[in-house]
Amino acid sequence: MTLIDLRSDTCSQPTRAMREAMAWADVGDDVYGDDPTVKELETESAALLGKQDAVYMPSGTMTNQVGIRAHTEPGDAVLFDQNAHVYLLEGGAPAAYSGTLPRLLPGIRGIFTAADVAAAVGRPHPFFPSTVPAPVKLLCIENTHNLGGGTVWPLEQLLAATAAGRQLGLNLHLDGARLWHASAATGIDVAEYAAPFDTVSVCFSKALGAPVGSCLAGPAELVARARRFKQQIGGGFRQAGIVAAGALYALRQHRSQLPEVHANAKRFAVTVSQMDGIDLDPAHVETNIVLFRLTRGSSAAFVDQAHRLGLHVLPSGADGIRAVFYLDISADDADRAATVVGKTLAAL
Amino acid sequence: MTLIDLRSDTCSQPTRAMREAMAWADVGDDVYGDDPTVKELETESAALLGKQDAVYMPSGTMTNQVGIRAHTEPGDAVLFDQNAHVYLLEGGAPAAYSGTLPRLLPGIRGIFTAADVAAAVGRPHPFFPSTVPAPVKLLCIENTHNLGGGTVWPLEQLLAATAAGRQLGLNLHLDGARLWHASAATGIDVAEYAAPFDTVSVCFSKALGAPVGSCLAGPAELVARARRFKQQIGGGFRQAGIVAAGALYALRQHRSQLPEVHANAKRFAVTVSQMDGIDLDPAHVETNIVLFRLTRGSSAAFVDQAHRLGLHVLPSGADGIRAVFYLDISADDADRAATVVGKTLAAL
Amino acid sequence: MTLIDLRSDTCSQPTRAMREAMAWADVGDDVYGDDPTVKELETESAALLGKQDAVYMPSGTMTNQVGIRAHTEPGDAVLFDQNAHVYLLEGGAPAAYSGTLPRLLPGIRGIFTAADVAAAVGRPHPFFPSTVPAPVKLLCIENTHNLGGGTVWPLEQLLAATAAGRQLGLNLHLDGARLWHASAATGIDVAEYAAPFDTVSVCFSKALGAPVGSCLAGPAELVARARRFKQQIGGGFRQAGIVAAGALYALRQHRSQLPEVHANAKRFAVTVSQMDGIDLDPAHVETNIVLFRLTRGSSAAFVDQAHRLGLHVLPSGADGIRAVFYLDISADDADRAATVVGKTLAAL
Amino acid sequence: MTLIDLRSDTCSQPTRAMREAMAWADVGDDVYGDDPTVKELETESAALLGKQDAVYMPSGTMTNQVGIRAHTEPGDAVLFDQNAHVYLLEGGAPAAYSGTLPRLLPGIRGIFTAADVAAAVGRPHPFFPSTVPAPVKLLCIENTHNLGGGTVWPLEQLLAATAAGRQLGLNLHLDGARLWHASAATGIDVAEYAAPFDTVSVCFSKALGAPVGSCLAGPAELVARARRFKQQIGGGFRQAGIVAAGALYALRQHRSQLPEVHANAKRFAVTVSQMDGIDLDPAHVETNIVLFRLTRGSSAAFVDQAHRLGLHVLPSGADGIRAVFYLDISADDADRAATVVGKTLAAL
Repeated sequence: MTLIDLRSDTCSQPTRAMREAMAWADVGDDVYGDDPTVKELETESAALLGKQDAVYMPSGTMTNQVGIRAHTEPGDAVLFDQNAHVYLLEGGAPAAYSGTLPRLLPGIRGIFTAADVAAAVGRPHPFFPSTVPAPVKLLCIENTHNLGGGTVWPLEQLLAATAAGRQLGLNLHLDGARLWHASAATGIDVAEYAAPFDTVSVCFSKALGAPVGSCLAGPAELVARARRFKQQIGGGFRQAGIVAAGALYALRQHRSQLPEVHANAKRFAVTVSQMDGIDLDPAHVETNIVLFRLTRGSSAAFVDQAHRLGLHVLPSGADGIRAVFYLDISADDADRAATVVGKTLAAL
Repeated sequence: MTLIDLRSDTCSQPTRAMREAMAWADVGDDVYGDDPTVKELETESAALLGKQDAVYMPSGTMTNQVGIRAHTEPGDAVLFDQNAHVYLLEGGAPAAYSGTLPRLLPGIRGIFTAADVAAAVGRPHPFFPSTVPAPVKLLCIENTHNLGGGTVWPLEQLLAATAAGRQLGLNLHLDGARLWHASAATGIDVAEYAAPFDTVSVCFSKALGAPVGSCLAGPAELVARARRFKQQIGGGFRQAGIVAAGALYALRQHRSQLPEVHANAKRFAVTVSQMDGIDLDPAHVETNIVLFRLTRGSSAAFVDQAHRLGLHVLPSGADGIRAVFYLDISADDADRAATVVGKTLAAL
Repeated sequence: MTLIDLRSDTCSQPTRAMREAMAWADVGDDVYGDDPTVKELETESAALLGKQDAVYMPSGTMTNQVGIRAHTEPGDAVLFDQNAHVYLLEGGAPAAYSGTLPRLLPGIRGIFTAADVAAAVGRPHPFFPSTVPAPVKLLCIENTHNLGGGTVWPLEQLLAATAAGRQLGLNLHLDGARLWHASAATGIDVAEYAAPFDTVSVCFSKALGAPVGSCLAGPAELVARARRFKQQIGGGFRQAGIVAAGALYALRQHRSQLPEVHANAKRFAVTVSQMDGIDLDPAHVETNIVLFRLTRGSSAAFVDQAHRLGLHVLPSGADGIRAVFYLDISADDADRAATVVGKTLAAL
Repeated sequence: MTLIDLRSDTCSQPTRAMREAMAWADVGDDVYGDDPTVKELETESAALLGKQDAVYMPSGTMTNQVGIRAHTEPGDAVLFDQNAHVYLLEGGAPAAYSGTLPRLLPGIRGIFTAADVAAAVGRPHPFFPSTVPAPVKLLCIENTHNLGGGTVWPLEQLLAATAAGRQLGLNLHLDGARLWHASAATGIDVAEYAAPFDTVSVCFSKALGAPVGSCLAGPAELVARARRFKQQIGGGFRQAGIVAAGALYALRQHRSQLPEVHANAKRFAVTVSQMDGIDLDPAHVETNIVLFRLTRGSSAAFVDQAHRLGLHVLPSGADGIRAVFYLDISADDADRAATVVGKTLAAL
């Protein structure tokens, strides 16, 4: 029995062709700015996202946190959705590395409104000492939204929320770890999604199946600042062209396969949603992430039992389960995974 | 026309007797541990709160933030009520100084439950990498709760929430800036409120009318750590005995007057709650803070107009008003303030 | 036997007249910007130093560290003399609070040269990645220099060193905790010393005998930034006018007495320098600090024995002793202190 | 004309065999602890260094800075040689990321003594407030020492300095980016060098010619802590087995070639040292780094001219030049490089 691994789309394996591309990549020392493959990836990413420049780093956590760092100084406040990955699942880095105070927005499955942004910033009144609260400097949006269940921001709502932020004088950062998925789901170009933001982080290992790395794109000056902070926290990874070649391959060859990935997630969701003991609206499955709740029993017991039966998924809170689809998971795997869900429910 | 100043209880003026006490205080260099009046205040505060030791600092912000710092290291998460003063109104210091990530609890007027604490911490599962989220290390409770409207934590609920935290391995800090008020309102000893916590911060300038300073009380080892951090951020304030004498005076002479302060706040609240255009349940006025909402118009316009008519209050969000009572405000002042509220509503 | 306390000039006691001034000071809430005595002190300090604005804080550590914070962001490098107080004796705050990297200059008794500044900054070459070293942003100078033995910066050398820093694009901060002493020793106006710097920190409790506090003076924009950071680390100390009144009194009444203090220090130094077992050049005693070395025995044994015999001094390294003179120490005290030094040497 | 690149040994290119090893490596998600090749590299590194565990990261900067972070908390002081790479050339991270205060030791070509360590820590005396200086927590040693010119720590001196640190209660970290070189130069096992230290950082891209990465080895508990901080700053680099395979290959296949690299460096040094205009003692060339000074002219002019003539070297201060040898540089290249040095001197 092979385990079907739906823990995360980061579990994808490099393909043979991608491995060949990595093996024979031209490389140089990235710290000296000498790696031609890294440079090619950065240029191509910036162009795709409609930004002046981009910088390649070893992880999405690093591109996001360096992005936050580049926009702020300690004691600034940053607006996040209450379930944002950068807030909850990046080791406390917004505070630990950037010294910024998270201020939370009440998103629904990760999507909040322009009014939420305005309410969070508030309006200073001269009677109240301006030195007392942390000044809000940055608004972060995550698209698609991981913990929201792979939700796609409606473009209008995205434009409204970012316009509200801009009007309040905020800088804007997009955590686009799975922006490729948003684009695949809606047909809207990634550059159109990226346009309202100063900086955009995109990931090659999560959505696209490359082994390693993310890019942070934005204005030349902010990217130059980001290069400094990348180096400071150890992101200068020498002959990175080896893995950048995998990222380039993924960028060029794998994006067109995302609709299939989404179809498999939906197929799984539809089947599972009909099972007794599962609370799941398949309409909420917009991309490659399926989040469902158990109407009885704990998520911990479920994931343990499913694992014994051949399906590797993660708990999401006390009664939630997360299953993530990606290039390596076929329609057949999706069906087999659904079957294991059924068996697991029966066994518990 | 004298302005009735209800912006904050920090606006209290030292009394003549308190000024005499300060003028003739024995003093020494606090950095060398030589100030006898500071030591007396620290000893007396520790004893009142049932803790081993206490350290005097220039402000409540410093005692709270040094308390958080002493309990944590950067990248740790700290649980706060969503409207906690230490989270919202201390310049982002939990992140900027301690590098800790705020995790928020859905308190109602600042009071949350043991279940909220447990839900926020969650249960780690071995399938999920423990390095990804920030580990929760500390639970903070604010009693009375400022932005909640001077709310008093019911002792049972306090014991349950702190027990939940303790069971989850958390350290416990009490922001007791107005703990004296909680005690005055309920008759429960401050030491009983403080008992479940490792560290307690209490303020002499907010609740008790002294000009300057707060104490952080706790186990000897943590207080020693706090002395280090106090010095690091400039809290070593030399012949601090001058102001410590005012704090000692307030501690000994002013605590018994708090019930009157509360009665004046309630008196004001009852009158104002009957006015058209005001949303206020006087039962929610438990101590010296009155929070009410305007059913029409903005808080900004209200505070400006009230100021012109002789009442100085602060906006609390887009449509909320905060009025805070303290020793200098008589029953008569409370009545005059209510009258100005009525005139302000009429004028708008 | 009364102990003659030469540990530090921070051990000075407020005078009766100063106590009166504090007792009856007009006060308000400093966090709301309402304290008239604080404002008066800030205005007067700014004027004396020739700067646009100034902000009063509880300690010299806070004014220095907030000054550094206001000039920098984490990862910037700051140039200090190798024995600067802000570097060695402020709890690691340049790193812990501001995240800045100290780069050290080889001062002689705290005084370095323009060439030292230029050498420390170096010249970037395009072959070397600019992201690798921390960029130097700020140059700090301490005048008089505490650990250097109260040394006064020669004005020409100060102008040359600051001009070198300016040419290299650095901001400039003066730790003028004892700038009053430099001025008293040379007749050069404090504003003339302060002129080359963006920000200047001056202390009322060290040099001038007030119980509490320091001012940071500088351009309005930087001082506004400093007010934010002051509040963030708990320097908002409410009715601070009580102690500000002491600082104002010291500023107005005590400055003229500094030459006498210096004369007493010199008198002590001359006597002590002639003793066998002491290495001290009285010409190095320029202000109120006397640093001497023991030619045999340890400083620890010396300070313990001296203490038993009635003199309280501090060790400075393995074989150095520091004695500091201030308003409370008379010429007679200076002579008695020298006698105790002699007895201590004899006893060891 | 091919440029001979002696800027850094990080400029080495992966060999064909190493590329094959990377192309076909078994990989998994490193964040989930699933990458078998990463695990193999970590186990093998720990074993070689005689430590319980090791963790692979994208760079030497990251292993060093996470090492410092794991040993300390903000406000602690750390002892470095005055020219340590971790202090000078890692973007200010000891302060910016760990909040630690560098205290500097007066090493000669990077090598200091036990007495230097003891003098820097000093002896606290009860008369002096312990809260004022930053407590020293960690001693870092760099072996071989980069800016010292590839100097090897004599084992006796290393043992004495680390014993002094241990006696003073310090933790001990070894920056062993080029520890392989020290071992190759002396025949002393890397584990013997590593034995006195808690943690050791070793680099595969600098000394050994792999494209990417370093390991931090140490006690299991500290390495677990390091894994947390690695993830926090974005070092969780997914299918890192691709590059770990290159590191494993380098570790197994390239170490035996280091003596040849050293011989080439020496050969170059001997030739160059005889040229007029060069100040270089070939006895100081102990491993693969050649540092020499120009007796006339600037290093900037020299490196520019050498570059035009076919040799790429870096300036080291105003009149120093650094040339670094590695696997790709043959004896012939070394001779050609020396010839270019001669031509450069002639041309200037």
